[in-house]
Amino acid sequence: MKKKAVNFSEILARFSEHWSPKIVARMNDCEFRVVKFQGEFVWHSHEETDEAFIVLEGSMTIQLRDGRVDLSEGEMWVVPKGAEHRPSAESVCSALVIETAGTVNTGKTGGDLTTTPDDWT
Amino acid sequence: MKKKAVNFSEILARFSEHWSPKIVARMNDCEFRVVKFQGEFVWHSHEETDEAFIVLEGSMTIQLRDGRVDLSEGEMWVVPKGAEHRPSAESVCSALVIETAGTVNTGKTGGDLTTTPDDWT
Repeated sequence: MKKKAVNFSEILARFSEHWSPKIVARMNDCEFRVVKFQGEFVWHSHEETDEAFIVLEGSMTIQLRDGRVDLSEGEMWVVPKGAEHRPSAESVCSALVIETAGTVNTGKTGGDLTTTPDDWT
Repeated sequence: MKKKAVNFSEILARFSEHWSPKIVARMNDCEFRVVKFQGEFVWHSHEETDEAFIVLEGSMTIQLRDGRVDLSEGEMWVVPKGAEHRPSAESVCSALVIETAGTVNTGKTGGDLTTTPDDWT
């Protein structure tokens, strides 16, 4: 039986809303979430998990309390567990975010951008 | 302080050997490994971890005992823990493989292609 791969372009064509992650795959206790965003997210941290960002389209910045990381398509970086960070993008950016299943997108900061990811697996 | 992202093109330009994974990042108990390959790997399974494949360049097939998955650049698939599989590629393929740290590339099958990944973090 031929199985279907997860195709990032197909996933990205299916939605346009920002800061609204879609779970596209799972591996062990981790979720792979595709998200689009523009502008600045809230400062937050995840006490229980590192968080990997892989840029699929566009470019983004991860602000950190002790610096920043600029990421373009084909680049990745891992935010360490507990590190305060703020993702941002001047133009629309699409990224694959990998983290422990159930991680709240805004950490303990909360607010209007807190959301439960859609399950697209 | 500006931190440096992991750039997959830069990583791929640094090596040409096949079936020789390079660890480029870590997240929780997982390693992100970049690997190039061509031809057929050995049938094997990983009893302790799922294994995610994201194709960076080229295309590949993951043969499974009950089917197959064809993957091209910008596509991913997760081999479930314990599932026998055999990666293959007609032309050179570059992939990002994500799995539990310390996972042996050939599982319990062993053989000449068994190798310890290089740590490029």
